Amino acid sequence: MESDLFEADHEEYRKVVAEFVQRHVVPHLDRWTEQRLIDRDVWREAGRQGLLGQAVPEEHGGPGVTDYRFRMITQLEIARVGASALQSGFSTNDDIVLSYLLRHADADQAKRWLPGFVTGETIGAIAMTEPGAGSDLRGIATTATRVDGGWVLNGSKTFITSGILADLVIVFARTGDNEFSLLVVEDGAEGFSRGRKLDKVGLHAQDTAELFFDGVHVPDENVLGEIGRGFAYLMQSLPLERLGIAIAGQASAEAVLGWTVDYVKERTAFRKRIADFQVPAHRLAELRTAVEVSRTYVDRCVRELNAGTLTAVDAAKAKAWCTQLQHDVIDVGVQLHGGYGYMMEYPVARAFVDARVQRIYGGTNEIMMEIVQRDLLADRG
Amino acid sequence: MESDLFEADHEEYRKVVAEFVQRHVVPHLDRWTEQRLIDRDVWREAGRQGLLGQAVPEEHGGPGVTDYRFRMITQLEIARVGASALQSGFSTNDDIVLSYLLRHADADQAKRWLPGFVTGETIGAIAMTEPGAGSDLRGIATTATRVDGGWVLNGSKTFITSGILADLVIVFARTGDNEFSLLVVEDGAEGFSRGRKLDKVGLHAQDTAELFFDGVHVPDENVLGEIGRGFAYLMQSLPLERLGIAIAGQASAEAVLGWTVDYVKERTAFRKRIADFQVPAHRLAELRTAVEVSRTYVDRCVRELNAGTLTAVDAAKAKAWCTQLQHDVIDVGVQLHGGYGYMMEYPVARAFVDARVQRIYGGTNEIMMEIVQRDLLADRG
Amino acid sequence: MESDLFEADHEEYRKVVAEFVQRHVVPHLDRWTEQRLIDRDVWREAGRQGLLGQAVPEEHGGPGVTDYRFRMITQLEIARVGASALQSGFSTNDDIVLSYLLRHADADQAKRWLPGFVTGETIGAIAMTEPGAGSDLRGIATTATRVDGGWVLNGSKTFITSGILADLVIVFARTGDNEFSLLVVEDGAEGFSRGRKLDKVGLHAQDTAELFFDGVHVPDENVLGEIGRGFAYLMQSLPLERLGIAIAGQASAEAVLGWTVDYVKERTAFRKRIADFQVPAHRLAELRTAVEVSRTYVDRCVRELNAGTLTAVDAAKAKAWCTQLQHDVIDVGVQLHGGYGYMMEYPVARAFVDARVQRIYGGTNEIMMEIVQRDLLADRG
Amino acid sequence: MESDLFEADHEEYRKVVAEFVQRHVVPHLDRWTEQRLIDRDVWREAGRQGLLGQAVPEEHGGPGVTDYRFRMITQLEIARVGASALQSGFSTNDDIVLSYLLRHADADQAKRWLPGFVTGETIGAIAMTEPGAGSDLRGIATTATRVDGGWVLNGSKTFITSGILADLVIVFARTGDNEFSLLVVEDGAEGFSRGRKLDKVGLHAQDTAELFFDGVHVPDENVLGEIGRGFAYLMQSLPLERLGIAIAGQASAEAVLGWTVDYVKERTAFRKRIADFQVPAHRLAELRTAVEVSRTYVDRCVRELNAGTLTAVDAAKAKAWCTQLQHDVIDVGVQLHGGYGYMMEYPVARAFVDARVQRIYGGTNEIMMEIVQRDLLADRG
Repeated sequence: MESDLFEADHEEYRKVVAEFVQRHVVPHLDRWTEQRLIDRDVWREAGRQGLLGQAVPEEHGGPGVTDYRFRMITQLEIARVGASALQSGFSTNDDIVLSYLLRHADADQAKRWLPGFVTGETIGAIAMTEPGAGSDLRGIATTATRVDGGWVLNGSKTFITSGILADLVIVFARTGDNEFSLLVVEDGAEGFSRGRKLDKVGLHAQDTAELFFDGVHVPDENVLGEIGRGFAYLMQSLPLERLGIAIAGQASAEAVLGWTVDYVKERTAFRKRIADFQVPAHRLAELRTAVEVSRTYVDRCVRELNAGTLTAVDAAKAKAWCTQLQHDVIDVGVQLHGGYGYMMEYPVARAFVDARVQRIYGGTNEIMMEIVQRDLLADRG
Repeated sequence: MESDLFEADHEEYRKVVAEFVQRHVVPHLDRWTEQRLIDRDVWREAGRQGLLGQAVPEEHGGPGVTDYRFRMITQLEIARVGASALQSGFSTNDDIVLSYLLRHADADQAKRWLPGFVTGETIGAIAMTEPGAGSDLRGIATTATRVDGGWVLNGSKTFITSGILADLVIVFARTGDNEFSLLVVEDGAEGFSRGRKLDKVGLHAQDTAELFFDGVHVPDENVLGEIGRGFAYLMQSLPLERLGIAIAGQASAEAVLGWTVDYVKERTAFRKRIADFQVPAHRLAELRTAVEVSRTYVDRCVRELNAGTLTAVDAAKAKAWCTQLQHDVIDVGVQLHGGYGYMMEYPVARAFVDARVQRIYGGTNEIMMEIVQRDLLADRG
Repeated sequence: MESDLFEADHEEYRKVVAEFVQRHVVPHLDRWTEQRLIDRDVWREAGRQGLLGQAVPEEHGGPGVTDYRFRMITQLEIARVGASALQSGFSTNDDIVLSYLLRHADADQAKRWLPGFVTGETIGAIAMTEPGAGSDLRGIATTATRVDGGWVLNGSKTFITSGILADLVIVFARTGDNEFSLLVVEDGAEGFSRGRKLDKVGLHAQDTAELFFDGVHVPDENVLGEIGRGFAYLMQSLPLERLGIAIAGQASAEAVLGWTVDYVKERTAFRKRIADFQVPAHRLAELRTAVEVSRTYVDRCVRELNAGTLTAVDAAKAKAWCTQLQHDVIDVGVQLHGGYGYMMEYPVARAFVDARVQRIYGGTNEIMMEIVQRDLLADRG
Repeated sequence: MESDLFEADHEEYRKVVAEFVQRHVVPHLDRWTEQRLIDRDVWREAGRQGLLGQAVPEEHGGPGVTDYRFRMITQLEIARVGASALQSGFSTNDDIVLSYLLRHADADQAKRWLPGFVTGETIGAIAMTEPGAGSDLRGIATTATRVDGGWVLNGSKTFITSGILADLVIVFARTGDNEFSLLVVEDGAEGFSRGRKLDKVGLHAQDTAELFFDGVHVPDENVLGEIGRGFAYLMQSLPLERLGIAIAGQASAEAVLGWTVDYVKERTAFRKRIADFQVPAHRLAELRTAVEVSRTYVDRCVRELNAGTLTAVDAAKAKAWCTQLQHDVIDVGVQLHGGYGYMMEYPVARAFVDARVQRIYGGTNEIMMEIVQRDLLADRG
């Protein structure tokens, strides 16, 4: 069963993205992995082709397209070639950082910051997690202290996607006793430095890094939204952030399943196609079923998002579900590739190392279930 | 996330069914189970209330409603009270037997047989499976031999739902070397007898039985469709039959999850609600997620069915998926009820014994995966 | 890989048990199930053959055999024919009730009570669980109040194995604020009555029941061990009780796997043995592996028990592990039997309904994991 | 429950290995990973300490110790620090290559080759798998043609452990129509070349490589055993090879579980130890149970191996079981480490990438189940 989510104009757009991917992504994938960094060029090219910052209103240089299905197609097409690191970078920019700006930036900030998200000149990052705090944001130690005309920021953050390249970082900081706010730190700010690129299991082209803020002066013009509303803003942002991860998982699952189906249809062992052995055949049939079932849920979530009715709880379900599916598909995919599944030159092997973080970041899947169970089991006496 | 499948008139209809269930099903459930037979009365009452044979055209006494969502609501509401045996009987009548008749009965047959499916006077059965043949229909031994004006039928069938009560039985019989046809045998036909009610693990109120055909004369007027087209007709019928089982599984999963959520919210152990222990809470959260994901797929299948585009392969996916989900939910449901989950007075215990056949009949889930894998992996060179 | 636990004299004993089972159990199984009660005769016959109360010392009429491997063989041979209800009754008698008596009965009590456990004249029960308390024994409401020369017992118990037939019931009762004791109530005691036989999912021949104690006078001679030591005694008894359930699970898993292997080797579909399809073949191979792996652990536990070194934690592991294995084997066993797996005349169907309680009683498997995690993760700073 | 396999002299030996690991392995692990090669020095040091070639008879410089428990301890202690690549290299040498030599080398060959396996001067490799043939050895294309005084070898092999460093390679080659033999190719042989080091998902310090044989002349003195007996020799070698992988899996599972238990006991989130949340606690309890159950089976296999009675089927069970367990433990281990589980500096992350091949090499786990099912389901009419 195919998705029934998309219409003719989405399919037109899909062709644009597919060509972009073939021309500007595929030829560079190995190099990006080796140099452990994606070229800035690809961001600008994506900007030129209209793939970035689609939600930015026309007055700030964007097309003002709020139909998320276009964004989704960008993700699907990048996933199809296994370019997880790029996908993750784009998603951080568009689904998270830009989303905060669109919601909370005042007129001046919008003017300053939004155009770069359309052109691909600006790479954004969101700095939440701290060493030792994990998913427990109320436990963070990064603090901003009030000074004349702004705030002085001290602390450090870790696991920051696009941490090395980022031009603009939204920092989640403590501005009072139990009060949190969003401060924007820009590249070049005094006291702002970047740690080493983290050596990760996968997503090698992603410049995940630690960030340090040592007495960084953040002027009032760089406070995003109101002081003290950090948690509330975070809550508003979570559905899209988590749906973004879910879609990445779904897309990866579909891609890996496709590669594996192709492989078992071509490859023979004991003089039969692997596809002609019942055990692998049924495993793939089960996964094909799972992928289609899951996709109807994702499609529904996208419709809800477009309608403004996607809840944080339903996005949490999608995040946990799709990333688990992605894991299950990849595990079988690697296994059915045999020894080749362990060779990095095979996309399924890269998917294996790239995907492992999906069940962890954006809130671990255990945190997702905590959110779901509270909704389900709360004593509403 | 709630289903978005239904509209206002479906919700109106739901009230009718819900009241029917409360007044005419719930008070009799225990008795039906004890007597191992559902009263015929409830069929007639359901007929009076317009719950049966909705797809029958007006000229034959029905409302001619082909929107399957009404049938689905009937199923959901019966499942909500755990009346699996009744649900299974109604489904055999409406989703299978009636469906064959609507597709293949000629004008005279339609006139003779359809009205009873609307009033609830006629209980139908479909006789396919034979002792020793299982899902392998090409291996059946029941044979009809040509005689003047009709056929003479010999053989036996087993695992026949509504086998004891059935007024009209569609028999799948061999009418040639590798040729199969559908013959209708009516109650009272000479040589037609019913074996003992089978002693099953669950569905105790269901009169599953063996049927014997000992030289039964089947006149030409009782041949359904064309001679030799039995397999083709069977193929046409499978999507609805399997979707029917899928919906029953989905509905049961939702009902059992609901009972279990209620139970763990009320029941305490070690001075806490069971719902306040993280392990059961997360298990229920996972199942709640699974139930919602699955429902979007079922809803999509129903839309496809209404549009006439549901494939046998997609129905096979739904059948395997939903019945596995049903199993998973019930397994946790029983476990979280503790000792009470093992007591037949608890609906969850009845669901446990009733549900086990769902992964077996209508084609085992392994057969479903065989269907899916062929579609997925066929060498279409 | 076969078990290496048994020696020649155990194998000799196995023949005795096997013949007992063939002559005195198999012919009556169906009747016991129908009448929902095991005949007392089989207890006495088992006593005559030396199958019961083997741990009773010679001075009280027993052989004083403390090598648990003989008991285990009794269990294995009864499981082999699927007589779960009898197995459960014998296990309650020998592994639980007798075990308490051997440990805590004083000389007079030993003289009064032990001989009947050897002859099969006495059927024992242990009354712990209460409606509403489940595994949380500190929450029980059954209370004994001190009177002259004894105690007056009030309360009710539920889920009591052998509740209808029991001649001697060890009651776990509150004798002080946070103090619990073991009182023995004998058949015929005034104020002691039995509720209805509970209608269970399976184990139909087992007379599980509720027990009521309405001002029952328990003389001091019927206090087992010291007043106030109930919890401590309970803790001592748990390893054997849980190992008993584990062995029952292991034995059932082995039996069901054997029946299923036989079935798929005989039965054909689509002109092949079911055993020749790779999916069922691999599932059985996985389960065969699991059964053998599990058995080495059970064997090791039995050796530890014999050596007096089996811990409550390791017994909890065995209980959870083996009953889960039993579930997994039966689930596949039923499925591979197809429609016949749902027919009560097939042993695999009876195993399905009988086994479900194994993951629940003796402490749910979730409670087992709670015990294991405390041992594993305790902060032993 | 601790293992009861080892005796006092094994524990003495364990101390030697543990010190070797701390002094000669741990300090070099990161460097070996970076340089993608293990230093030859560590082989020689291991030789000096008596860790290698223990089964070599005294006449050839070894201690002639055939009690496999000493080898097992070497594995366990190396696994404890996560040095999978070294473990895999040692295992290839001792469990596979040396094992072939001990069984089939003639007196001259023994004299030439065995001493180097004791001193660590000789690193061996076994060359079986070919590009495009996987587990299906009858499909290999590497061929040796008879010439005067020897054979001429042509073909290529892939996925060869120690492929770059190997001094001595046992090549599995076709020497006739359906006839296979073992030929020993030594470093420096003309026409023998090594391909690039393969870029694997993990085991980065392992020099897995392709090997090319371009008209290599193999003199008769380098034929191992009899010509044409290659398959038979392979069959004899499999139990130990697969048990070796099983033990590596078991050891890794135990190590990772230990690291994870330590982590959740130290690390806090939401002001509690992670160990105090029930979901992770139960998951670890389940895995602890699984690890102990599995270990009893492994211990039993080692006893059988020592007794010369370990069958290929039981070794296949152990291989599949333990490597699956290893996967399950690592998956949870990574997850409970949160973001740190994705950072290569954490041993659990390295275990994740290293372990993935365990379910693939030595025969995929699917092949293992094929072996088990044949044994279980063969029609022995």
